[in-house]
Amino acid sequence: MVNIAVLGYGTVGSGVVEVIHTNHERINQRIGDELNVKYVLDLRDFPGDPIQEKLVHDFNVIVEDPDVQIVVEVMGGIEPAYTFVKRSLQAGKSVATSNKALVAKHGAELLSIARDKNINFLFEASVGGGIPIIRPLNSSLTADEIEEITGILNGTTNYMLSKMFYEGADYAEVLKEAQDKGYAERNPEADVEGYDACRKIAILSSLISGQQVDFEDIYTEGITNITKEDMMYAKEMGMTIKLLASSKRDNDHLHAIVAPALLHKEHPLYNVNDVFNAIFVHGNVLGDAMFYGSGAGKLPTASAVVADVVDEAKHLNRNIMTMWKNEKLELLPLDNTSKKFFVRIKGDAEAMKAHLESSFGPISIVKVDGLNGEFGFVTEEMTEGSYKEKSAEFPGIIHMIRIEE
Amino acid sequence: MVNIAVLGYGTVGSGVVEVIHTNHERINQRIGDELNVKYVLDLRDFPGDPIQEKLVHDFNVIVEDPDVQIVVEVMGGIEPAYTFVKRSLQAGKSVATSNKALVAKHGAELLSIARDKNINFLFEASVGGGIPIIRPLNSSLTADEIEEITGILNGTTNYMLSKMFYEGADYAEVLKEAQDKGYAERNPEADVEGYDACRKIAILSSLISGQQVDFEDIYTEGITNITKEDMMYAKEMGMTIKLLASSKRDNDHLHAIVAPALLHKEHPLYNVNDVFNAIFVHGNVLGDAMFYGSGAGKLPTASAVVADVVDEAKHLNRNIMTMWKNEKLELLPLDNTSKKFFVRIKGDAEAMKAHLESSFGPISIVKVDGLNGEFGFVTEEMTEGSYKEKSAEFPGIIHMIRIEE
Repeated sequence: MVNIAVLGYGTVGSGVVEVIHTNHERINQRIGDELNVKYVLDLRDFPGDPIQEKLVHDFNVIVEDPDVQIVVEVMGGIEPAYTFVKRSLQAGKSVATSNKALVAKHGAELLSIARDKNINFLFEASVGGGIPIIRPLNSSLTADEIEEITGILNGTTNYMLSKMFYEGADYAEVLKEAQDKGYAERNPEADVEGYDACRKIAILSSLISGQQVDFEDIYTEGITNITKEDMMYAKEMGMTIKLLASSKRDNDHLHAIVAPALLHKEHPLYNVNDVFNAIFVHGNVLGDAMFYGSGAGKLPTASAVVADVVDEAKHLNRNIMTMWKNEKLELLPLDNTSKKFFVRIKGDAEAMKAHLESSFGPISIVKVDGLNGEFGFVTEEMTEGSYKEKSAEFPGIIHMIRIEE
Repeated sequence: MVNIAVLGYGTVGSGVVEVIHTNHERINQRIGDELNVKYVLDLRDFPGDPIQEKLVHDFNVIVEDPDVQIVVEVMGGIEPAYTFVKRSLQAGKSVATSNKALVAKHGAELLSIARDKNINFLFEASVGGGIPIIRPLNSSLTADEIEEITGILNGTTNYMLSKMFYEGADYAEVLKEAQDKGYAERNPEADVEGYDACRKIAILSSLISGQQVDFEDIYTEGITNITKEDMMYAKEMGMTIKLLASSKRDNDHLHAIVAPALLHKEHPLYNVNDVFNAIFVHGNVLGDAMFYGSGAGKLPTASAVVADVVDEAKHLNRNIMTMWKNEKLELLPLDNTSKKFFVRIKGDAEAMKAHLESSFGPISIVKVDGLNGEFGFVTEEMTEGSYKEKSAEFPGIIHMIRIEE
């Protein structure tokens, strides 16, 4: 029998218990042994729930029980999750977690403890919910140099942007709708400001570089400034706007960014709508690939956590994933990266085009019926640094959105 | 040093050598040892190619060399590939192959030899080219009962159907174009008759059931009867036509089919165009997921083969994949499966509707401007057996295409 303890009986925690119960036969067959939930840690009680008899309120009961071989951490947040995970690993118990904040901040250290103890620290569910991406990057795309990884990594904002695109709704409206449906929190900051996506791309960047990428170093811009009018311009250009989290290789370095971006119809991420997530990967020999699925939700996330548990149960005394080292990777400055920019500006296109072109070089004008006193233009490819410098000359600029080619 | 031998220096074989050369540093780092191509087996000589000095014409040189730990089989076809792979495994050498015909026919036996010898027989490249699908099914989606797997598994036919859809071209035209571009063979049977996709879905069906699914048992219909007119109806209905290979669970059984199908715009496979492949998976807890990428081509396929080699090099004396047993799985009869049918028929819709509905039940009529003397209709969901029986009463039926919901 393989005994596990689940830390946290919230949405994901109860999902983990449910998945193990629903698919126990198939799971035990894959492990070649019986998987048993011995404890569930939660401060609350759940009278009437069959879990009540396994419930403990004291983490020490779990960490001191030599029968517990695997700990599932699904509490979220840094503390006490960090302390509990570290103590579990030090006690020789493998850990599976869905906690992106924990992995982004302490991944390298926790991986190194697992390596020393010849056990495992796995976190498939921390990025892309149920979508397999950590394991494919680590075990499947091993013949490639990964040159780019760009994802729609936050379901809430993707739901909101999809609504704005297809229904012409405005930001405040769709936020309220997302909150009413339970897709967005009352305090939606982590989603709409891009913080959630930022931690996820930090994890993916660490994976593809093999070094620690600090999420604090990643330029992050949310969707709070995206308006109904921006979407009208996007449609006019045959594009859409998505919140992209992206990491691109430049020789031995990476540049990473989280920001809304304009995407052409032909881009594989263009059609990823609603709460779905997708991760686009470009390998130097593989070419383009994409992984798509439910980026959040109780059961999809629990599916990924339990898959990690299955892997850990099959490899109780063997470290199986390479992952990344503690050594920090300095990201390239955003100012050095090149792209095309879409800019909305006040004024009259005909009157201003020559002046704009004398600064930005050749531009193409975009006009939208019904939007008066303003127009849009698209630059040729230029560096962010150069764009910043030039745009400072034009106080009439309303908004800039990067174009993803 | 880990020594490998490559059997066959054709497109994929030369790709394997190129990938190992291009990414040798990263690959060696991942293995933790140096990967060396010791031999290449081919009947031909390649004077001037650096591979010439490693070239052998006799397989015995390879199988008898104890230094060769991994054999890469990329010759294609059943013989002599089967004999060479079997002898390699029996000699204790792990094998990586891209050969779908071999895996579909002899997979169970070869897997069982690898298990007995505590080595590995891997074949990621046999389905979906560079797209990771075998390893994710085997190692990532382990918390799920896989209820459906439906793929666009053949790039040639997908290229042709995309052209027919977007450009209104006819079958003969696009076939010639695909042949001119090198996407289709002079004898295009394996692609256009669905035989290639059939072997691939047989492999995936075996994987998700854990038992041998014989490709001969899978109902297979190619795209040779799909016309420009069919595409006009598809567009009229807001749908497209794709060659789908599908395997769906019904309790402990599967039903599998390869056939052209009408897809709604909302289906994740709707936007998979040109030579790209994609595999849609539905798990009972994961929900929907999709894997997308280059389904063929020299380097993408080689990328998947080399990823298998990396895995085998890291696990030289340890069997790592569960895969499937020799025990045969009987598929459910096609006649018992239920779906909606789109039917083209000669005659006048108004005059015939009542008669059709007295047989098929409620139908919805589809008419296309410019197509006279015929019309289309869509049935409610019914079994294939029932459709067959009822359609026999209407000799005016031109063509039937299944609808994928």
